[in-house]
Order: sequence, then structure tokens, then C-alpha cells
Amino acid sequence: MSIDRRTFNEDLGLRSGAVCLLPVMNSGKGNGAVNSRYSGKGLQLSFEAYELHLNHVFTIASYSRTSTPVMLVKIEWDGLVGYGEASMPPYLGESHETARKFLKGLDLNQFSDPFRLSEILTYVDSVAKGNCAAKASIDIALHDLLGKILDKPWFKIWGYNPEDTPLTTFTIGIDSPDVVMEKVKEAAPYKILKVKIGKDTDEEIINTIRKITDVPLCVDVNQGWTDKREALDKIHWLKEQGVVFVEQPMDKCNLDDMAWLTQHSPLPTIADEAIQRLDDVSKLHGAYSGINIKLMKCTGMHEAHKMLNVARSLDMKVMIGCMTETSCGVSAAAQLSPMVDWADLDGNLLISNDPFKGVEIVNGKVVLKNSPGIGVMKI
Amino acid sequence: MSIDRRTFNEDLGLRSGAVCLLPVMNSGKGNGAVNSRYSGKGLQLSFEAYELHLNHVFTIASYSRTSTPVMLVKIEWDGLVGYGEASMPPYLGESHETARKFLKGLDLNQFSDPFRLSEILTYVDSVAKGNCAAKASIDIALHDLLGKILDKPWFKIWGYNPEDTPLTTFTIGIDSPDVVMEKVKEAAPYKILKVKIGKDTDEEIINTIRKITDVPLCVDVNQGWTDKREALDKIHWLKEQGVVFVEQPMDKCNLDDMAWLTQHSPLPTIADEAIQRLDDVSKLHGAYSGINIKLMKCTGMHEAHKMLNVARSLDMKVMIGCMTETSCGVSAAAQLSPMVDWADLDGNLLISNDPFKGVEIVNGKVVLKNSPGIGVMKI
Repeated sequence: MSIDRRTFNEDLGLRSGAVCLLPVMNSGKGNGAVNSRYSGKGLQLSFEAYELHLNHVFTIASYSRTSTPVMLVKIEWDGLVGYGEASMPPYLGESHETARKFLKGLDLNQFSDPFRLSEILTYVDSVAKGNCAAKASIDIALHDLLGKILDKPWFKIWGYNPEDTPLTTFTIGIDSPDVVMEKVKEAAPYKILKVKIGKDTDEEIINTIRKITDVPLCVDVNQGWTDKREALDKIHWLKEQGVVFVEQPMDKCNLDDMAWLTQHSPLPTIADEAIQRLDDVSKLHGAYSGINIKLMKCTGMHEAHKMLNVARSLDMKVMIGCMTETSCGVSAAAQLSPMVDWADLDGNLLISNDPFKGVEIVNGKVVLKNSPGIGVMKI
Repeated sequence: MSIDRRTFNEDLGLRSGAVCLLPVMNSGKGNGAVNSRYSGKGLQLSFEAYELHLNHVFTIASYSRTSTPVMLVKIEWDGLVGYGEASMPPYLGESHETARKFLKGLDLNQFSDPFRLSEILTYVDSVAKGNCAAKASIDIALHDLLGKILDKPWFKIWGYNPEDTPLTTFTIGIDSPDVVMEKVKEAAPYKILKVKIGKDTDEEIINTIRKITDVPLCVDVNQGWTDKREALDKIHWLKEQGVVFVEQPMDKCNLDDMAWLTQHSPLPTIADEAIQRLDDVSKLHGAYSGINIKLMKCTGMHEAHKMLNVARSLDMKVMIGCMTETSCGVSAAAQLSPMVDWADLDGNLLISNDPFKGVEIVNGKVVLKNSPGIGVMKI
């Protein structure tokens, strides 16, 4: 264990923000390399486009893809580096181009105190509408930086217990029975599987999986069902097959039918496409049993944590999910996981070129590290 | 600035919780005196009964008093001390006796990691019903301790800006015109006054105050009004007198009349007696424009912070209030104040024997210190 540079400097009377005249003893925590551009003043933002390669072609009710564009972000301050990520599956409307434009337009250098998190994120949110993944990349990098300054992981700063992390689901996309069987075998270490359904092969997929394993399943319909009574019949059948909840059964705008379905459903219904940010949570109360929080949709950890608190106070279930992401985004989301009912944090397990090492899944359960910030290391 | 003991120990491979073999270099932060009882293991709780002397006889709609019993609490861990307080105005049902019994029954020594805040507070809450002020004293002491470990004040850990603190109200109790005039003169540094009304002297009190000052007023009716139409007439008149909001106009259980009154009121209505804990917030949505959060009623900072987030997400106004308290309780509440609409944090200003120094009011505005934890020092 090496000397904590922050304390080391402060002991010598050098306050954060002062120009550092000392040789830097880099602790190696989170690869906190010193940026030669560091001016001793504001936050230094840098970013890099990256393409995630998926292990399998990924198919949901509406389309297929083999890769996901992400933007890898760094915020440097006082010799520490916070890492962030924007994952941008194309159907959400963001891209390398939009993220580059958004991030280039930010002036984080105006902020000399990263603890002004609320002010910084309010500024970031005000620069342009949308761009939620790009906004999340800043939020995550700031949290990583702050956690490193505080020398604690965020689950600790929030007061949560690492043992309370849930099992994580492993996602099985829509595919031919042969491919589904192969994927389910690959998913053997997981204690709960998330099955993408919502096309005309729902029963076939579930039956195929049930030939191999009897682990609990959850299903993600991705708005694939159109008739509420038919949806209810399907949910009854799914319950008999050992399914524990149903994600986004119908169109995200159809709140009336969803309220009816939730009222009659023997399984909890979880909003995914229907939920984006904090303001949506109370609007969905009554229409869904719970929400799936994703950092890339809600602009990051700060807002996600509020969403969690609001959902809990409304007696709603909470799931924490992700896109296909590196271990950076997934480890950030995992900080919240001790407080959720279910986690769907397999995004980094679906890719072959993860540039980070972070949260791990051991025996199907999210295992948080005691490393500061979001707990990731660049490989 | 002295050496940070935590980091100092960790650098030598001594983890928190290990028996300390080193001479303790006490930084003096927050009077973090080393407790000789420190076993190197669990949290050490101690408490002391104390009686606050009020500068003025305090009269609200229902009764008068000249003192307030409080319990001063310490949690010691690893050579650091966290301070907490339970303030127990008699009408809330707690007393030195109930607090002593509750605190004696707690086994905090079972917890060796103060960062397990959520688990510790869940345990504390489960030990007995009620006892909200006693529970708050633990929550506050834990936050103070954690902030000292992190070496940051809570407003920073939460990401809030110290400049965003609101003006604080100064409370004028129900009294004769002469005494009211004297109190208003004493309150000259304050930019907003909170006037207790709800007896048959409402107009007389307001008129008396308006002879001396034209600062904005808010009124606290303490459930004193019984007829909603009469209440609405009074609110219209109060608005003309420069009143900016109305606290707890009617009986706390009368949600229907309150919903009507809030809908028709030209001023925001704020729940006080009607609100206690997190679960109440969403229930009051629609019946009141906002809520007054008090640590002594909601079990402390952890739950208060959640209440703030929930109220905000429901577009409700938020006020942070206090009882007559020492600077300990008031400084804890003040950590949240950058995020509220109004503060009523004058509890420590109404007493003559404050054993702490903490948050200050400068030109009527809450001024947060950069000291770690809740930012108090024992005098």
C-alpha cells in the first residue's frame, strides 16, 4: 500500500487545487496516472471512441447487431483519474458522432472542485437535450474520481453492504433452438437467466431452455406483446415455467393496458423502455410493479441513486440493468446493486474486448471490490 | 495540519478494525479525542442527558415551555468521535427516560465497520417502534463519524454547494404584542421570520410585526385552524401582508380539507405535524405543496436525504426544520440545506447553553463549514 497522495499533499499544507510542486507518488489506485496537461485548476476531460465486439449476434424483438459503439471518458484532477463510459446501442439514438459533439462542447475546466457534483451535473444536463449516455459517462467518471479522493468505493459512501448484492441475470437473446441451447450451456454459472422473448417463438424458446436447466428465469419482452389479455395468458403460462418477473411486456406508451396487466398479473411487471429518468418513476407508479434503472438512460449514478430511493418509497421493485458495456459502466451500476431486487449486469460478459477489469460475478452473484470509486482498473 | 491517522495506519498495513499499536496522532478534527475504552473492534456508544434552557418561554398553539430535554450521544471508533443528539420536546412523547432505555438497549459494538450505515440504521430502527429522536441521535453520530473518516463534510459527500444554502427563518412564538415586538427587534439580522399563529390573535401578531419590519414572513399555524374556508380567507389576507408560505394550517389527519385548501391557496402549504418519515412523503402529495423535514422526527440524516429526493421528484417544496436543539442537531440538518427551499434552523439560537459550535447564520443565511462530518466542535 502506497502513500495516499491527497493526504500526503495536505499534510504538507498543499490543498487540493494548488499547483503540485512535489514529485508525484502515484498510488496506482485505479491507474491514476498523472496527466501532463494538469494545470492545477479545473477538471480535465478527455475521451476516446471505442467499439465493443459482442460474443454473439444480439437479437431482441426489434433488431440484431454484432457490436456496440462506446465512448471511454477520463476526468483528471489533482493527479487522480476518474473513468467513465457512454455505451450507445444504436436504437437509443446516440453514436460516436453525437457523443463526440456533446463532450467537445463541455467546459469542465471551469470547475475546480469535483465535490460540486450537483452543480457540475446540472450544467452537463443543461448543455443539450438527450445525450443521456454521454452525460452518464461524465457522471461515472466524476463518481470514480470522487471515490478515489475519498478513498472509498461508492457502495460504502452510500452506506450499503457488499453482501447484499443480488444474483445477476445472464441474457439469452432470441435465436434458433440450437443457438439458445448453446448459450444456456455457456450460462451454467448463472443462477437466473434473462430470456429475450416477444416474437412468435416465445414458447419454443422457454421450452428449449427448460430442457437444459431449471434455474429461475425472467423474461424481457421488449414491448413485443400487443394484446393485454393475450399478455396475461402468456404471463400465467410463464409463471408455470418458473419465470419470476416480466420486463416491458407491452408498448412503453400504453400505460392504461399496463396498469390493467400489472393489476391482474401473477408476476411483477418491470418497466424498461418505459422508464428513462427520475421524473418518470412516480408516473409509472401503478402501471408497473417496478423499474429497470440503466445508467446510460438516466444520465448516471447520481440520478440512478435518486430513482432507487423514489421507487423504494413508492413500494416499487427495482432492477439495475445495463447495455452491452465495458466493466467500467457495469462496475458503476454495480455500486447500487446492494439495494436492488434484481441485477442484470452482464453487459461486460457479452463482449470480447473489455478494456477494464472491475466488478466480478462469482457463482452468479455480483461481487463488489473494495477499490475506491467505481472499482475499475484499466487493463 | 496533522497526519491523517486513518491513512497513516493503512499505509503501514493496519486496516480499520485492527488493534492500533501506534501512538495516536490525534488531528483534533472535530475534537476526535481517543477513547480509552476503544477495543479496536466495534462501535462504542455513550450518551449523556442534558437540559436546554430556552432564551424565551416558547408558546405555540397548544402549550408553552421553558426548557427542552436532549440526549447528547457519542460514537467512538478507531480513535475518532462522532457526535449526535436527540432533542425531545415533550409533546412528541420522548424523554430522557425513554431515550436512555432505547440507547441502553442498543448493541452497536456488534458493528466493526461504520460504513455499513444502512445495516446499522436498519438494526437501530428495528429495536423498538417510535423513539425517532433517539434513533436520529445515532444516525447523526454515525454520519459525523463517517464524515470524519472520509475527512469531508456531508454536504460535500452528497455533492451539494455550500453557497446554495437558503436564508433561515427565525421563529417568533405566540405572545403579547410587547413581547412579540421585542423578539422581532432581536431578530433584526434575519431576512425571513417564522411566526407562530393559530390562536385568536393571528391578525394582531402580524400587524404588530408589520409595524416594525417588512421582511418576508412565513406562518406556522400548528394545526390551529379548523375551517377550510376560513383558513383560505386567512391565507389570502396573510399573502397581502407579505407572508410567503403557510405551515400546517389544519389538523394533520384532515387530508381532504388540506387537499382542497392547497388547491385553492395562493400560498404554498407545508406539512409539518402531518409528516414524519419517508413513507409519509408520497401520501401527502396533492394534499400539501411541500414538507418540513426534521431529523428528530424522521430518524436522522439518512432518511431525511431520501425524503428530500422523493419530495423533489414529486415536485414538492422542501423545508428543513429543527426542534430547539444544540448546534449538533442543527449542523446535521444544515448539511441538507443547500437542496431545500427554506430552512428553519434557528433551534440553537433559541437556547442559552449550547455545548457545541457548528453551523452559523451570517446575514440570515446558513453558512456551512468545511469541517468534516456534521461540522461541529464541542465547546
